[in-house]
Amino acid sequence: MTPEEFRTQGHRIIDWIADYRARVESLPVMARTEPGDVKKQLASAPPDSPESFDAILADLERIIVPGLSHWQHPSFFGYFPSNGSLASVLGDYVSTGLGVLGLAWQSSPALTELEEVVTDWMRSMVGLSPAWSGVIQDTASTSTLIALICARERTTGYGLVRGGLQAETQPLVVYTSAQSHSSVDKAALLAGFGRDNIRVVPHDGSQAMRPDALASAIDADRRHGAAPCAVVATTGSTSCTAHDPIDAIAAVTQPHRIWLHVDAAMAGSAMILPECRWMWQGIERADTLVINPHKWLGAAFDCSLYYVRDAEHLIRVLSTNPSYLQSAADGRVKNLRDWGIPLGRRFRALKLWFLIREQGVAALQVRLRRDLANATYLGDQVSSTPGWRVLAPVPLQTLCVRHEPPGLEADALDRHTLEWCDRLNRSGATYLTPALLEGRWMVRVSIGAEATERVHVDQLWAAMRAEAERSVSSL
Amino acid sequence: MTPEEFRTQGHRIIDWIADYRARVESLPVMARTEPGDVKKQLASAPPDSPESFDAILADLERIIVPGLSHWQHPSFFGYFPSNGSLASVLGDYVSTGLGVLGLAWQSSPALTELEEVVTDWMRSMVGLSPAWSGVIQDTASTSTLIALICARERTTGYGLVRGGLQAETQPLVVYTSAQSHSSVDKAALLAGFGRDNIRVVPHDGSQAMRPDALASAIDADRRHGAAPCAVVATTGSTSCTAHDPIDAIAAVTQPHRIWLHVDAAMAGSAMILPECRWMWQGIERADTLVINPHKWLGAAFDCSLYYVRDAEHLIRVLSTNPSYLQSAADGRVKNLRDWGIPLGRRFRALKLWFLIREQGVAALQVRLRRDLANATYLGDQVSSTPGWRVLAPVPLQTLCVRHEPPGLEADALDRHTLEWCDRLNRSGATYLTPALLEGRWMVRVSIGAEATERVHVDQLWAAMRAEAERSVSSL
Repeated sequence: MTPEEFRTQGHRIIDWIADYRARVESLPVMARTEPGDVKKQLASAPPDSPESFDAILADLERIIVPGLSHWQHPSFFGYFPSNGSLASVLGDYVSTGLGVLGLAWQSSPALTELEEVVTDWMRSMVGLSPAWSGVIQDTASTSTLIALICARERTTGYGLVRGGLQAETQPLVVYTSAQSHSSVDKAALLAGFGRDNIRVVPHDGSQAMRPDALASAIDADRRHGAAPCAVVATTGSTSCTAHDPIDAIAAVTQPHRIWLHVDAAMAGSAMILPECRWMWQGIERADTLVINPHKWLGAAFDCSLYYVRDAEHLIRVLSTNPSYLQSAADGRVKNLRDWGIPLGRRFRALKLWFLIREQGVAALQVRLRRDLANATYLGDQVSSTPGWRVLAPVPLQTLCVRHEPPGLEADALDRHTLEWCDRLNRSGATYLTPALLEGRWMVRVSIGAEATERVHVDQLWAAMRAEAERSVSSL
Repeated sequence: MTPEEFRTQGHRIIDWIADYRARVESLPVMARTEPGDVKKQLASAPPDSPESFDAILADLERIIVPGLSHWQHPSFFGYFPSNGSLASVLGDYVSTGLGVLGLAWQSSPALTELEEVVTDWMRSMVGLSPAWSGVIQDTASTSTLIALICARERTTGYGLVRGGLQAETQPLVVYTSAQSHSSVDKAALLAGFGRDNIRVVPHDGSQAMRPDALASAIDADRRHGAAPCAVVATTGSTSCTAHDPIDAIAAVTQPHRIWLHVDAAMAGSAMILPECRWMWQGIERADTLVINPHKWLGAAFDCSLYYVRDAEHLIRVLSTNPSYLQSAADGRVKNLRDWGIPLGRRFRALKLWFLIREQGVAALQVRLRRDLANATYLGDQVSSTPGWRVLAPVPLQTLCVRHEPPGLEADALDRHTLEWCDRLNRSGATYLTPALLEGRWMVRVSIGAEATERVHVDQLWAAMRAEAERSVSSL
């Protein structure tokens, strides 16, 4: 495709995306497709000859769009929001169009230096001190894996350059809570710790990790000859946006030099609001931290910020220096290949730079406060309606709710919860994610899609009541 | 930014990228910036109020572009090509614009099913059997890390669900060659094997791993009580596109059930040419395989294909199943979160789908054959010129060359090589990457940028001779 053909077809794509975003509200939020429906409409063999761009766009419209669940829909309340703000989308378009890579500073200096600048911007926006250095990773899963590998290497005194983890004689232990994200377990397993060496520290009634229980678990492990290595605390847990008490946890970890990693993937964006920062009080005492601007804040996915206090340690764990990557600038520059797992790196800083500049910090704050107010508003509606309950505190924009008609025992209530939520999702009117809380099903309402206004919250609440009551009448 | 504002500014971005691609040939290939030059022109604090799109675009032009090394330049011969073909770029634009995520099949069914279809397309395009299942990762570094973790878990009988790697009593060993990519070492270290347990197997005169030396190393380890775990072989190594003999290596690994991972990140694209497939003869005997269509083939970065023969094993190692990700479709669908490290996933299949459909396989083959012919042509020019040498076989599109003026001893020759290459890069006329081969510096010429035609190869060769001779005269 020549630049002139790109110009022609690119304008069509821009119009198509603009139209998609404008009409997304008219589409069913959750895909109504059955497994295999999309695949069976697609050619099973690649074409030998070129196809027209018309044919590709037609298939996009006819086959792909009906197979999507629409994350940018104003009635998307599932998982956590993943806002691809349109200014950020354009920043990503520049990145892909330029097609430059950041293997090393030399391979595209502006890529590295802009990444340093925007991670510094975000650091100051969320109120962190300059003691932190940031880098963009793909997701919090990867950031947490890197954190646990860095913890492993601090505890073992860089065992990776000797016999590795397998040569350690004391088992290294990772501590987290049952409310932490599934990626914490996964990272610990992939980093080689083993499930036997993951401690699930008890939480309190607000789903927060108990520092006293953490201290006991650490003491018990030390008595048994194990080496406490890392604690992963969460600010804004997935099920119910609970926050572990960072300050009190750090008071436990610091005397033993245990690595403290904070997963603020979701709640990190909220820290651009000073009134939310109490949630991660003590954050300066952590070793590493992950914040995902690709969630609520609006950076096009993927854009996960990983902050470290000891950059030298990170580089020592992750650095490689083959001859074909050396350059005269080495020693005077940041080579981002030594800050993550992949060698290749997109120019991801552009999408965050475009977002923050086009919006300005104040407008981002206004939008997040709108969502917090919507969550409070919906919480009030739910709490004041007979038969409905808000099950956990609502410090952010996610509510845990249940419709509890009288006379249902626990298992029947679980079936009822899953039933009305599923019917609601299938109706196309909205998308909600059910989850377990204290072993019982509830429905998460995660408010914060960029397009979600009060009217959509009202529509949601009306639809929830209607489906739940319909479900009761069919019991 | 509203959809209508996006339409207006998006058209400007399309025009800007079209113009950039059209004029890229007029820019110096390698950035001429000094460390810190870009950063000092950028605002150190984020704006509180919105900035105009005009201001952002002006900075892009004034600050960012001069700080780029231009990978899409027709005279880019550095590293390996990273072709962002414009059809593929548009596929990526659709992905970012839709802003959907593939956490699970349910979270956007078409994302998962199209990924299955295009990885199947690529499988057949490179002549692999249907025994392989594919998934898109970001880079080969990540693919190789996953391969080594999977190998670790097969050898330990899923030690990750027990005491992890640290509980193993026999050291697990990884084998590779000095020609393998730096990401192999990095993956083995991150996966916890430790440097003491990485064996660098000797290579022969064509830089290929010696199967007899591999067999000896494995025997020695077994005699000393270690557990041979994985071999990473390379098809198309980074320095000189050497290929390890897969068939002969598999004959060594299979009797011991040692995991065989093949890094065909670069050469994998060439396998769409039947005449190149001798290079990975025996590939069906490998366990895992990585191919990067984001290199030579033209898929916009990042698009690394990871193929496995035992998908159940992969899923068992990588799966997570928290309540908030469960859906009614589970058990009948592929949940791609269980095929990689990140939970979130862009709709990356679109960029490969757009590329293959808009080009057609035949045209992709024509382009790759053009580059192979250009490499042969340049090799002939170099070999037939007194004082110049081609140092390694040229099975693909990368040449290892050296200008060897008479009377220079080894160290002086190294200085001469680095000197003329650096001068050439600084001239802006071209971009070449020097590298070590058998402990001595040489210059890699990696042909294969999409825009590179014979005329650019001729210009390169003229510039190489001119700079090398200028460098000699200043000795």
